[in-house]
Order: sequence, then structure tokens, then C-alpha cells
Amino acid sequence: MAGGADEPVERLIALMARLPGLGPRSARRAALQMIRRRALLMDPLLAALSEVATTVRECDRCANIATGPLCAICADPRRATGEICVVETVADLWAMERGGAFGGAYHVLGGVLSALDGVGPEALRIPALVDRARAEAAREVILALNATVDGQTTAHYIADQLAPLGVAISTLAKGVPVGGELDYLDDGTIGAALVARRAI
Amino acid sequence: MAGGADEPVERLIALMARLPGLGPRSARRAALQMIRRRALLMDPLLAALSEVATTVRECDRCANIATGPLCAICADPRRATGEICVVETVADLWAMERGGAFGGAYHVLGGVLSALDGVGPEALRIPALVDRARAEAAREVILALNATVDGQTTAHYIADQLAPLGVAISTLAKGVPVGGELDYLDDGTIGAALVARRAI
Repeated sequence: MAGGADEPVERLIALMARLPGLGPRSARRAALQMIRRRALLMDPLLAALSEVATTVRECDRCANIATGPLCAICADPRRATGEICVVETVADLWAMERGGAFGGAYHVLGGVLSALDGVGPEALRIPALVDRARAEAAREVILALNATVDGQTTAHYIADQLAPLGVAISTLAKGVPVGGELDYLDDGTIGAALVARRAI
Repeated sequence: MAGGADEPVERLIALMARLPGLGPRSARRAALQMIRRRALLMDPLLAALSEVATTVRECDRCANIATGPLCAICADPRRATGEICVVETVADLWAMERGGAFGGAYHVLGGVLSALDGVGPEALRIPALVDRARAEAAREVILALNATVDGQTTAHYIADQLAPLGVAISTLAKGVPVGGELDYLDDGTIGAALVARRAI
């Protein structure tokens, strides 16, 4: 009751405040807006959340978030291109999709190898990736892992595991971000962009 | 499917993005977090939202958001102090509660008088306020309306309506906000603070 609302409303606000991007104050505003726009916001949101909560699961093939055995990408026959893009997380998969440049299927690892945190290949669905690349006779595996030390270690480990299959293996290009200004870039990125320079 | 998630998940994200404080990008992050922390976040949130959606209504007495005939404030016998604080919106009521300095009950107008927008006294629950002040034999009515032209016009109109009852009528003090710096204050506020100066 500290905030002036009834207990169920306060509980809703407290839960919404735990979402990333919403603090206690914006959660309060969001809840109020929801209650005020009941037909437009609260009822559809409740229906959508309820549907997601009952149907959401992991895609059997790529571990993306799905609402059936396969996610919408794996279920799309136009995306059976023989290209598998390996990402660390579902958030990275969604980021790749926003890029809109990839037309194949994904494989979500669920993290990166980390000796410190005791994360080994089995925890990351790497054996599943090898099995899948073999079973699907993939032409190319694109390693879209983060450009961190753990991400690059994981990429090299996966490349070693896939080597016997003779599948093409690639990683995302390193270079200057689109719209990026040299003056604000770290030295490593500038160096990598120079090494990978292209004729125009 | 544009974002890489299945249709029900995309629908949930689109609805969450309509909440104030969340854009398309943060709605996506929030939805992902919810799905990942299912037991901790999604299930309790669904339960809380469902409870609020089925129970939420307007308090019969003050028009605050309530989950029964009376809101938690009106149902609290400790707050029957004979003081009624008049606010424009539920958000303003919650802001007053955060201040923590008021121990009486509220009356939410639902807006301010506006000749331009055709908002008259009946639309604002002003007759209900007069009836209520009389029925409850209120000692004081505090007009906590925004310090805007429409807010102050409405305050004067309400004061006129309440005059025959002989109830004490007050408004919030105008002055320097706590933590405020004079150099950044508008001239009107400085003038009002000077006129209302207090001996220390």
C-alpha cells in the first residue's frame, strides 16, 4: 500500500519493475497506463502473455524460442539453405534477424565455453551442432559469436570439431561499424579493419 | 516473424512496446528476460496481471484505482481524518502518497475544467466532491491541483462551490522545490516563494 494503490496493483508494479528497462517509477506509470487503457492495452497484453506462457518452449532444432516443436525460422522451408549460423543466445539470434541479411537457419549455443565458470562443450549444444551439420549435410557454418575472448575461444573449438566434416566455416567480418567514427573506435578494431581492408 | 520470434511472442513484444518507458528494443529485451526467467518473472507476472484485470475498478468514494468497492486508502479507518485531498489524476494521488505527508483521504477529479476542451464541473466529479464534503462533515479540503492555469482555475471554481459549507479550504504551498537551485528556477516561482516567505 506504500504507493497508494491496492495490494494486487502494487504486486503487479513490483513485478513489472523487475523487467529490464523499467524501474519502479516507470513500472508505476506503465501499470497505470495499462489500467487506464484496459481494452486497448491490458486485455490484449493479458491474452498475449497467457498464450506465450502456455505455448513457449525451445525449438527442437535450433533452441530458438518457439511456440511449437520448431520455431518459425526452422519451420520455414525457404530457409533450408544448408547454411547454419551459430549464435550464443536467442537475443543474438534476434539481432541477426534484425540485420535481415541472413536467409539460413540458426543454432543457439546458450553461452560460450568458460573454464572459469565450468561451461564445457556438452552444456553448449556443440555435439548437437556437429550431429546436425552432418545430418543436414550443411554447406556452411557461420560462427556469429561475440568478439570477446570467450566467444573467439568457443569459435575456434567449434571450428576444430567441424573440421572432419569438410563443411565451410566462417565468422563475421571484423571492422568499422556502419556509421562509426574512427576517432571513437578502439585500436584493436581499427587494426582489424585495416588488415581486412578491401579494394573499392 | 520480422524479429526472429514466433508470432505470439512478436505480438507480446509489440504490445509491451506500447507501454510508456518501453520502446520496441527494450520490449524485446523485456520479453526475452520474461521467457528466460519463467518461474521467477513470467508466471508471477501473468498471475498478477490476471488478478488485476479481473478485480480492478474505480473506488466508489474517491475514484482511485481499487480492487474492491473502496480503495485501500478509503478502506483504512486510520485515514478517516476529515481531510480530503483533491487531485487531478490517479498518478497525482500516487505522487502525493509517495510524499508520505498526508494521512487523510483523496478525491480524484479525473481532469481539470477546460472551456476549450468542453470539460465542465459534472465531468470532473465536482458535485460529488461537494456532496461528499457535506456528508462526511469534512474539516478541510486540500486542493492539490497542478500549478497550471487550468489547474488553478479549477481550484478557484471548487473553492467557490465549497464556500457555503464553511469547510476549511487550502492549496499546496508554492515555493522552491527541495534541492532546487534559484539560478535554474523560473521568475514566477521565485516571486511566489518570496511572497510566501517564512520566519526561521
